[in-house]
Amino acid sequence: MPQTKDIILNAFSMNCVGHINHGLWTHPRDRSHEYRRLSYWTDLARTLERGLFDGVFLADILGVYDIYQNSVDLTLRESIQLPVNDPILLVSAMAAVTEKLGFGVTVNTGNEAPYTFARRMSTLDHLTEGRVGWNIVTGYLDSAARAIGQDAMAEHDTRYDRADDYLDVLIKLWEGSWEDDAVVHDRARRVFAEPSRVHRIDHRGPYYRSQGYHLSEPSVQRTPVLFQAGTSGRGRQFAARHAECIFINGTDHAAARRTVDALRAEAVAAGRTADDVKILVGVTVVAGGTQKEAEEKLADYIEHASPEAGLAHFSAGSGVDMARFGLDDPIAFGEGNAIRSVTALARQKGWTKRQLLAELAIGGRYPVIVGDGARVAEQLIAWVEEGGVDGFNLTRTVVPESYEDFVDLVVPELQARGAYKTAYGEGSLRNRLFGQGNRLPARHYGSRFRLERQAAE
Amino acid sequence: MPQTKDIILNAFSMNCVGHINHGLWTHPRDRSHEYRRLSYWTDLARTLERGLFDGVFLADILGVYDIYQNSVDLTLRESIQLPVNDPILLVSAMAAVTEKLGFGVTVNTGNEAPYTFARRMSTLDHLTEGRVGWNIVTGYLDSAARAIGQDAMAEHDTRYDRADDYLDVLIKLWEGSWEDDAVVHDRARRVFAEPSRVHRIDHRGPYYRSQGYHLSEPSVQRTPVLFQAGTSGRGRQFAARHAECIFINGTDHAAARRTVDALRAEAVAAGRTADDVKILVGVTVVAGGTQKEAEEKLADYIEHASPEAGLAHFSAGSGVDMARFGLDDPIAFGEGNAIRSVTALARQKGWTKRQLLAELAIGGRYPVIVGDGARVAEQLIAWVEEGGVDGFNLTRTVVPESYEDFVDLVVPELQARGAYKTAYGEGSLRNRLFGQGNRLPARHYGSRFRLERQAAE
Repeated sequence: MPQTKDIILNAFSMNCVGHINHGLWTHPRDRSHEYRRLSYWTDLARTLERGLFDGVFLADILGVYDIYQNSVDLTLRESIQLPVNDPILLVSAMAAVTEKLGFGVTVNTGNEAPYTFARRMSTLDHLTEGRVGWNIVTGYLDSAARAIGQDAMAEHDTRYDRADDYLDVLIKLWEGSWEDDAVVHDRARRVFAEPSRVHRIDHRGPYYRSQGYHLSEPSVQRTPVLFQAGTSGRGRQFAARHAECIFINGTDHAAARRTVDALRAEAVAAGRTADDVKILVGVTVVAGGTQKEAEEKLADYIEHASPEAGLAHFSAGSGVDMARFGLDDPIAFGEGNAIRSVTALARQKGWTKRQLLAELAIGGRYPVIVGDGARVAEQLIAWVEEGGVDGFNLTRTVVPESYEDFVDLVVPELQARGAYKTAYGEGSLRNRLFGQGNRLPARHYGSRFRLERQAAE
Repeated sequence: MPQTKDIILNAFSMNCVGHINHGLWTHPRDRSHEYRRLSYWTDLARTLERGLFDGVFLADILGVYDIYQNSVDLTLRESIQLPVNDPILLVSAMAAVTEKLGFGVTVNTGNEAPYTFARRMSTLDHLTEGRVGWNIVTGYLDSAARAIGQDAMAEHDTRYDRADDYLDVLIKLWEGSWEDDAVVHDRARRVFAEPSRVHRIDHRGPYYRSQGYHLSEPSVQRTPVLFQAGTSGRGRQFAARHAECIFINGTDHAAARRTVDALRAEAVAAGRTADDVKILVGVTVVAGGTQKEAEEKLADYIEHASPEAGLAHFSAGSGVDMARFGLDDPIAFGEGNAIRSVTALARQKGWTKRQLLAELAIGGRYPVIVGDGARVAEQLIAWVEEGGVDGFNLTRTVVPESYEDFVDLVVPELQARGAYKTAYGEGSLRNRLFGQGNRLPARHYGSRFRLERQAAE
């Protein structure tokens, strides 16, 4: 079954110890505590580029997980995304040792003024020569709100209204301030930039005001590739307008297909094409030289895993303290300020806490694929064919071996099946993902902020 | 004349084309337009480490210079710190190719909540293994205020009041949230961090509130080395409390000595020692193999320089549009929201605009030293002996040759005179600068936020 499209692969990681598959930092081969060292990241970047990964997708969280047992104790003991360092500062070091690997960086829209954030992303797009994506998040933890001096997180829908306004400022700066040929670098005429080709934006929105010139000259992509993971109603509306890559949770092929179809339909309704959004599902892979070896590896991992840490993470995501339930109680959810996608799964399945714990041992809320390279490749291909996704965000288990296993064992099998590229494509991250140039397509909402007088690319 | 102390050397640069010595981007050998490429910065870092530079000091500005001719036209044509990319994102790439070079990064206190900024600096301190400094600025351009959605910049003294409060939050997070031995990484007991050794801060200040755990585990220095350049009355008060390295303008030895003596006296009055502040003066060096070669090089540079661009930069700094004056008019200053140190020079000397233009051709507002290696070394040593400074922020002229010339021609002459190290010292940037360990000294204001129960370092 030859594939017509190459599967998109991102490594899903985070600048911390425990990310998704909790407790594996206790495995004797795990190096995740070395996240503080540059070599940990430059080694990872080289491994991923060797495996022709499209990108590394760096998650982030502000605030701490303090819902479970109404405490941060387990969060600290199992290092559940705490401590967590800034992801954006890893990019330039990884970019310096690679040529094609992309970087999807999670940054909350509430952290700083759009004017300074616009420059941050432009700077990275320059330094990486067009390999940067931005995973847009609006935050959900009250502990983060208190830490940045607010009483509580804004309401969910309000956060997206703010984010819409924030994006408008950003895209005006990225697309509408400097013309393509503004920088001429003409030593003889003493003209670095032609003033007539640089324009001041003047944004007065419901939440943000900004009057000024973008501080950065045009970068390869201008607007970074826009990632998003929102699956709520308002989040989907935001995604339909903005997102180019959408990260979903999929419990099975049919559920993924429903989500994928809905997301693509919403993009089309927003004037885009179904292919204008690439949809990636989170997945955990445990690969071995043989099926038996893979299963033994999984058993070994499970011995070191912490289902309880998974539960504490799940509690923060759902807003419900899972410590309140007995092992054989069905789990009940309130409404509250929850990540709906996380709770939907347990709610839909009517799980008891015991069942949830078993699910959370490895994989967290993502499907787990265990096998030799051929079996993993076939299952990934089935996810694409049956689930309709374009690719995967691959979680880490024991690092760096989980990425090395994937590159050494699974990638060749995907390639043998025609489902994965054998060399990187040309141009920017956006061009490699969509094949339609380095810039936002004309049918993307953001293109309305583009200057009319633009030189041909 | 053997020196008892090694001269401190920082390369003074900025993530842009024109920084201090304007117009030199038109020189055929100048590569400053390559600031967008990682290799430009990693090459620079390697050159500086070869010359045993203590650090690279990265300036920054938000907003644009629009005072001169009430316009940004010349700013764009001569690329006067516009475009300007984010400096903080350069650090990890430069750190990955060096082992000892320090990084002083300019960041405005008004850009983001202290909680997220604290994590940014901790992340860099981790990734560089203790080589990070922060140049604290409060901003001064109304164009920046409008760009981030304010009507105008806050009053000068108010900005420092806010900055004091901002620093309190930061230092509480850096020094007072995680005990030294909080991270135990005990796989057998399944304890990554001991919860009893991690503490929540609760700051309620006049401008900032923050309640939360620092997101980063303790880094080598915890608090980055604190740099400052304020020389106003309120700025000096801030420096006396916080700054470990102070960057000054010195027009001659005597003026520098007055500033240095006053700054050290203020530090002592704040309970610190005179040696707790290292004072660096900005200087431009044009070095040649012989005196004649150096002077020819200077003449060549001056031919490519843009005194008018210097004047536009000066106009923004002083808040006075210098285009208003005739060439032979004495320059008059209003009060306004000016950088007082810049205007003091011209005011004190009673310059005409013509005189100012001549001064601004090369060097900007910094002294210029021209000569062979021996002569430059002797003049630098005289600045230390007569001016009382601890070292220099070395501006760039034509890059990279100005740094290469300095490393190849001047450094050996400084070393031959016993005025400069022949190898890097041990430990963090702070320890190399002060020789008293990696952490803030006990007599620094910030040490009051340190936890009482701290393990010995």
